[in-house]
Amino acid sequence: MSQNPQQQPRYSGIATFMRCSYKPSLEDVDIALIGVPFDGGVTNRTGTRHGPREVRNQSSFMRTINQETGTAPFELCRVADVGDALPESPFELTQSHNSIQKFFERVLACGALPIAAGGDHSITLPILRALAKDGPVALVHLDAHCDTGDDYLGSKFHHGSPFKIAVEEGLIDPRKTIQIGIRGTVNTSDIWSFSHESGMRVIYMEEFYQLGITGVLDEIKLLVGEAPVYVTFDVDCLDPAFAPGTGTPEIGGMTSYDALQVIRGLSGLNIIGADVVEVSPPFDPTGVTALVGATIMFELLCIAAESKHRKDRATGG
Amino acid sequence: MSQNPQQQPRYSGIATFMRCSYKPSLEDVDIALIGVPFDGGVTNRTGTRHGPREVRNQSSFMRTINQETGTAPFELCRVADVGDALPESPFELTQSHNSIQKFFERVLACGALPIAAGGDHSITLPILRALAKDGPVALVHLDAHCDTGDDYLGSKFHHGSPFKIAVEEGLIDPRKTIQIGIRGTVNTSDIWSFSHESGMRVIYMEEFYQLGITGVLDEIKLLVGEAPVYVTFDVDCLDPAFAPGTGTPEIGGMTSYDALQVIRGLSGLNIIGADVVEVSPPFDPTGVTALVGATIMFELLCIAAESKHRKDRATGG
Amino acid sequence: MSQNPQQQPRYSGIATFMRCSYKPSLEDVDIALIGVPFDGGVTNRTGTRHGPREVRNQSSFMRTINQETGTAPFELCRVADVGDALPESPFELTQSHNSIQKFFERVLACGALPIAAGGDHSITLPILRALAKDGPVALVHLDAHCDTGDDYLGSKFHHGSPFKIAVEEGLIDPRKTIQIGIRGTVNTSDIWSFSHESGMRVIYMEEFYQLGITGVLDEIKLLVGEAPVYVTFDVDCLDPAFAPGTGTPEIGGMTSYDALQVIRGLSGLNIIGADVVEVSPPFDPTGVTALVGATIMFELLCIAAESKHRKDRATGG
Amino acid sequence: MSQNPQQQPRYSGIATFMRCSYKPSLEDVDIALIGVPFDGGVTNRTGTRHGPREVRNQSSFMRTINQETGTAPFELCRVADVGDALPESPFELTQSHNSIQKFFERVLACGALPIAAGGDHSITLPILRALAKDGPVALVHLDAHCDTGDDYLGSKFHHGSPFKIAVEEGLIDPRKTIQIGIRGTVNTSDIWSFSHESGMRVIYMEEFYQLGITGVLDEIKLLVGEAPVYVTFDVDCLDPAFAPGTGTPEIGGMTSYDALQVIRGLSGLNIIGADVVEVSPPFDPTGVTALVGATIMFELLCIAAESKHRKDRATGG
Amino acid sequence: MSQNPQQQPRYSGIATFMRCSYKPSLEDVDIALIGVPFDGGVTNRTGTRHGPREVRNQSSFMRTINQETGTAPFELCRVADVGDALPESPFELTQSHNSIQKFFERVLACGALPIAAGGDHSITLPILRALAKDGPVALVHLDAHCDTGDDYLGSKFHHGSPFKIAVEEGLIDPRKTIQIGIRGTVNTSDIWSFSHESGMRVIYMEEFYQLGITGVLDEIKLLVGEAPVYVTFDVDCLDPAFAPGTGTPEIGGMTSYDALQVIRGLSGLNIIGADVVEVSPPFDPTGVTALVGATIMFELLCIAAESKHRKDRATGG
Amino acid sequence: MSQNPQQQPRYSGIATFMRCSYKPSLEDVDIALIGVPFDGGVTNRTGTRHGPREVRNQSSFMRTINQETGTAPFELCRVADVGDALPESPFELTQSHNSIQKFFERVLACGALPIAAGGDHSITLPILRALAKDGPVALVHLDAHCDTGDDYLGSKFHHGSPFKIAVEEGLIDPRKTIQIGIRGTVNTSDIWSFSHESGMRVIYMEEFYQLGITGVLDEIKLLVGEAPVYVTFDVDCLDPAFAPGTGTPEIGGMTSYDALQVIRGLSGLNIIGADVVEVSPPFDPTGVTALVGATIMFELLCIAAESKHRKDRATGG
Repeated sequence: MSQNPQQQPRYSGIATFMRCSYKPSLEDVDIALIGVPFDGGVTNRTGTRHGPREVRNQSSFMRTINQETGTAPFELCRVADVGDALPESPFELTQSHNSIQKFFERVLACGALPIAAGGDHSITLPILRALAKDGPVALVHLDAHCDTGDDYLGSKFHHGSPFKIAVEEGLIDPRKTIQIGIRGTVNTSDIWSFSHESGMRVIYMEEFYQLGITGVLDEIKLLVGEAPVYVTFDVDCLDPAFAPGTGTPEIGGMTSYDALQVIRGLSGLNIIGADVVEVSPPFDPTGVTALVGATIMFELLCIAAESKHRKDRATGG
Repeated sequence: MSQNPQQQPRYSGIATFMRCSYKPSLEDVDIALIGVPFDGGVTNRTGTRHGPREVRNQSSFMRTINQETGTAPFELCRVADVGDALPESPFELTQSHNSIQKFFERVLACGALPIAAGGDHSITLPILRALAKDGPVALVHLDAHCDTGDDYLGSKFHHGSPFKIAVEEGLIDPRKTIQIGIRGTVNTSDIWSFSHESGMRVIYMEEFYQLGITGVLDEIKLLVGEAPVYVTFDVDCLDPAFAPGTGTPEIGGMTSYDALQVIRGLSGLNIIGADVVEVSPPFDPTGVTALVGATIMFELLCIAAESKHRKDRATGG
Repeated sequence: MSQNPQQQPRYSGIATFMRCSYKPSLEDVDIALIGVPFDGGVTNRTGTRHGPREVRNQSSFMRTINQETGTAPFELCRVADVGDALPESPFELTQSHNSIQKFFERVLACGALPIAAGGDHSITLPILRALAKDGPVALVHLDAHCDTGDDYLGSKFHHGSPFKIAVEEGLIDPRKTIQIGIRGTVNTSDIWSFSHESGMRVIYMEEFYQLGITGVLDEIKLLVGEAPVYVTFDVDCLDPAFAPGTGTPEIGGMTSYDALQVIRGLSGLNIIGADVVEVSPPFDPTGVTALVGATIMFELLCIAAESKHRKDRATGG
Repeated sequence: MSQNPQQQPRYSGIATFMRCSYKPSLEDVDIALIGVPFDGGVTNRTGTRHGPREVRNQSSFMRTINQETGTAPFELCRVADVGDALPESPFELTQSHNSIQKFFERVLACGALPIAAGGDHSITLPILRALAKDGPVALVHLDAHCDTGDDYLGSKFHHGSPFKIAVEEGLIDPRKTIQIGIRGTVNTSDIWSFSHESGMRVIYMEEFYQLGITGVLDEIKLLVGEAPVYVTFDVDCLDPAFAPGTGTPEIGGMTSYDALQVIRGLSGLNIIGADVVEVSPPFDPTGVTALVGATIMFELLCIAAESKHRKDRATGG
Repeated sequence: MSQNPQQQPRYSGIATFMRCSYKPSLEDVDIALIGVPFDGGVTNRTGTRHGPREVRNQSSFMRTINQETGTAPFELCRVADVGDALPESPFELTQSHNSIQKFFERVLACGALPIAAGGDHSITLPILRALAKDGPVALVHLDAHCDTGDDYLGSKFHHGSPFKIAVEEGLIDPRKTIQIGIRGTVNTSDIWSFSHESGMRVIYMEEFYQLGITGVLDEIKLLVGEAPVYVTFDVDCLDPAFAPGTGTPEIGGMTSYDALQVIRGLSGLNIIGADVVEVSPPFDPTGVTALVGATIMFELLCIAAESKHRKDRATGG
Repeated sequence: MSQNPQQQPRYSGIATFMRCSYKPSLEDVDIALIGVPFDGGVTNRTGTRHGPREVRNQSSFMRTINQETGTAPFELCRVADVGDALPESPFELTQSHNSIQKFFERVLACGALPIAAGGDHSITLPILRALAKDGPVALVHLDAHCDTGDDYLGSKFHHGSPFKIAVEEGLIDPRKTIQIGIRGTVNTSDIWSFSHESGMRVIYMEEFYQLGITGVLDEIKLLVGEAPVYVTFDVDCLDPAFAPGTGTPEIGGMTSYDALQVIRGLSGLNIIGADVVEVSPPFDPTGVTALVGATIMFELLCIAAESKHRKDRATGG
């Protein structure tokens, strides 16, 4: 029998992301798949700390080639599961973010492109801190919420605010930031005013269906252009029928098919990193949310591998 | 910390509808949110008696403002959870309906507009008996079933017949009644003949998608006009992917997004009451159906609050 | 009370398919509903051996008439649950297939048209062996996977290969075979090359939405024409939101509404048999997948009853 | 392969009680296994109407011989699943009880000993009405509740009162009635005073463990002696760890092992009928409660078959 | 119908603890039932923040009188649900504990005896800080873990250390502290050395069964005597068969029956407060753990009401 | 932060058995923890192929020291997760067993003691074939079934027969074999006659409680003495309340506490290998069965590590 875990029965063996080799050493890694089991920033239901484990588990359903696009990420790049970015002091948000940031700095120092599985959405902040050392990056953000809110219950850093802070710290360029899938109730009518005032493009669900996938993709490409771009995928952008296992579900979201079309349409962008967040296994009895998370992670891997491969070839890498 | 429950963590506190004040006294209430935990009228799976509790629980996910429409119902009206309309003798259908009717009569006597969470669909009958004292009202009815059937297993009053009886008793005007989302198998080819013969507008799922939301809304507005209208939402109008926890699921239904668009499109009508029925927690392990129920209840609250506010202002109320 | 089980409360009585009479003798049966509780051919998650039981259980939700199309299958034909095609030696794939084949041969010898509930997709092979005695038949195949793969883990016969073998054995005509709903990751870029090279029409999910239901149905009718046709429905053609309980879920699939439209559109074809496969109850906590399976089985029964009735009348049968 | 369903794979075939033949005709039946899918008498959680279906389903786990006692019930007697005692008008308690009574009268008229699976505990009342035509019988009653309460919410007939009414109607002899496993909270300190004042022997859980199984069995035998005895088993006599799927769970109950020992210890009594009630599948996600119900039903079958066999032989039957 | 919620159907109405009146004002309250929805101190699985809601929900199963002991707590004392002790800044452990402490200080200032439902076990520390103003109190502690550990992951305050800190702060008297049910694996052999060295009595599960309930109760009474005593019940003292929904389950625990016997045996002690902690609804699909939590809370209420009643009468209160 | 996975948060990182290092190379391993994800031998419900994954997942709950016995297995021996013994051709039982056997032969050749997690019980046969090269070994077998049955459905090798074959092949000495926990129904009264006639000691559940743990342990020690002994633990020896997630549950089984006492009592025996089998995650929604499996595996590790350590020290290893 082949010793390649990806060729063995999918229920077998150690559950790494997509049955890749486990390389905590980071050696010979082009793309690093990383778990970030931290949910200290949630405002309601917890549980996303268990996300990386279950995304790893369900990611065994992934095979090696993207049938729709033809991309074979494991041939384009050396992909590995490099383990978890663990918070040093999980009871304290700021320090936790610092340790996550350091982990990603180490990954980047090794030349690897990071793709993360959360964890709550607050983790994207320390990842961006590690990534945007040379100036603000573009952001493609699928979510039911803009996550550009103010302080909540006395804390500035939580899973509803990372992108406000990211702008304030110069990590993302709001004019190259697009937020897609926004919907649901709010507590103040101007809760996302930061998004609007800073110049982000916000596509609410109604507009999403009015524009259609092609229209949305056109806007993304226009906005992002050649800029280095980070893609962050909150599973609550999907309707709870497709992703019930998340902390803040909002009905009326997009379908899995919609989401796949958007991610695939990002092919050609200059991807520098990506994440899938807010998969919450305790609220996901069938595992279907973790499966969605794993599949989206695979799609992100495909567009990232293409991008990485293009750049490495261009630079003779 | 704010003493307003709607500003506190959503997992905390007593679970009232949308974390409103609990006012069984009915004092100072413009809109009364009411549980009707009765399922004595079901023909197959029971469990909707547990609906109000779980809709209350999941309704903590609701915030105070409708992001899409901008409506702020709690600013327009004084909204309260006024408790449950309890059947006096839950083992007997007719008496149970009588006690439900009395509860709603008391609510109306206090000048409050009622929005109910069931319970099975038979509860809409006693609600209409309380509401339609001045002649038949219009009805917007989302459902997989017309619920205008004949006697079943020896009983006239069950959850498959309330709207036939409502016409017969002069509670609703069939020519101002529209039934949307009908589908599934039937036991006699003319089971809904009462709907057709009495002049109701029946939109089956196929026609629903052919007309599109705009087309459906045009028909509703044409039919209902300025008439006082009751809106009744059976969660089984949704596909079981979106609302598995119900007594009589039928595949091939609408999405949550479709349903939201329909309800929001009713803005401007002269709403006099509304309900969400057939949420059955024992068949809803993820709670997603109760969440849908709670969100639809919030959307109904928004259009009802606008309507109530308009009228109260017009009458100097 | 009526002695007809289909008129009794749906939670009551022995669970046969659609509450039909149980006739293991096969006497006076025009259409035979058959369970095939075999999952010895799966490559990943098992459990479809429990499919027939749960499809029977959920099929009590079915009533007797198709509201959309008006078809009354139990009036057109004598329909019965004839029991299970049991593998004689469930630990051995080839012998199991032989016993399944024999069961269907006996059904056909009695003049009955078979509609089966699996089991894994490998069961369609022995069914076709029984059916295609007079030459290759046409095939309408809804699935996420073409199931025309090569050997897997040392075995030629598994649930990912039946249609390759069926072509090789002359059971189906590849130029009259259409595969609909294909998507997901693959392990080799040419995994379904057999489908393409043998002349099958493969409609991937993207093309499915580009063509629309009408376009897809046009292609089916053009391809199949008057040929005797078998319809095989793998529930994983649906998105896991609609059918989570299956062995190899792939996100991005069609909705239940889409599937209903396709099956109903097959009306008029010369149907000689059909199946619903890959319902896996252990992964289906809400039973919604078994309900989908039962409803699709009812829709298949409707088009098959029409076809059988037409032919029997034509031949004076 | 053997045509005996009890020899075939346990996941296969039509789900009858213990895979017995289905004989609604009642011909050639010594012991009739009967479903009573009625839960119109519950005071809190519904769902036991689904009990017979799931007990049938899980009863496929049963094999043919009691390993501990050596009893082979299917050799001693002709055992059949005779279908469900259906309430004619499920919305009305009294009429429902009447139709259940008639069903059991028909069973008894055929000379068969009935063993029922409920349904809620109110069903034991009409069964006793059918059985106790010749004077009051003895009763062995395992339960968390005495079920000898007064009217509840305006109804005399509900699942908390059957044994009070049974005494009043002369169906059971209270001095030959023993109630075992009683515990939990009560709403009035004298709620079970009828049990005590009428002369029933009530064994609360604490006394149950003080006496031990042997002590309990000694008391039963002393009380019951040679009298014809009915055994009624409410699964809530078990701790919810062993039987979570029931309407009124009370912690601190007996174990499955305890219950098996009690039932087996009844061997030798003059059993005239028995039931297992209050299995509620909607609250039983693992099916373990239905499995307990099916196993207890098998144990009741064993002691009943011995008793029936003894009597039939004695009378030359 | 009675307006007393405790006399109404148990599935109805607002879910307060044991269907008591909701009195956030704390007026006229002898015993305050309090939710503490805080789980910021957990070291592994989160979710106990949802505990108070679900314990409230399941506590509707409670009736008003303890059948075994005859205690009628609602007659002895005025009992109310006074709402939740909410952490002001849920992202920060120390401040959260401070706000919990303040809430309990306010309760005590009103003369009410507090009974809390957690939340994780770290909440007992701020409760004790509020209670032990006049010197260390005695502690009866049922748990799988001693919770007297050292710092964990850089934090001193977590749910594995409260009782070490409580001794250090002079809140509990270790020689009047008894820990019951300890078991499971440990990471350092001297993890609970603080318990042993400070003089606590630690009863491991093996000794628990060797002593028997009577022996355990004798030790408790000997140790505690007349001292004011706090009772803290971690549901993980139970075997996961009885309480699966908890953060740190350890197999081999006691049964619900054992636990009931221990709590009832505390009758007569000078109870000054009590809690039930670590009920984690996301890991409790059947709700059975919340039911256990609610029932234990009722039993704690009974012994506390007796104690409070005795003292109030003694002091002419 | 410590780099030792066993010191990190238990929800984090790659899920290996007990968070040990993953060493597929088998280098420097004294005790090899092995998954055997094979369920091709089951006669009813499948799913144990998913057992190793979930036991690995839940085994993160394990810490490093056995509190009750003081054993610190990771200090006594070098313990590693060496991956899965994968069947080469999972569709064919005999070849699958051969590949499992080869895997264990390689483990033994490296000098490691194997502890396996199944998989169905048929896997113990190839393990014993690898282990018993020098003559029959003793066997301690906890199970609800003797698993010494005859051919089933045409196959000799299935999960109900391994120990009959093991005797026939001279792998185990029946006079040094003890089977504990046997119960449930059977299809032939002499199904386990092979156990009795070959001289095995069979302890049925009733005798288990009559003897008590001490009595059972005395018998085991008397029988096994100094002989090399294999311990096989089928989780269905436990009552389904403690281990619902298994293929063939039988009510009336032992508790987790009982099982822990038996395993701990084996300390001092000459352990040469052990396994835990029949954990079936698809039937285990709370994960409690996998937790039991993981804990028993830890206890087996403790007694095996003591034994291995003693022997290695004796031989200067």
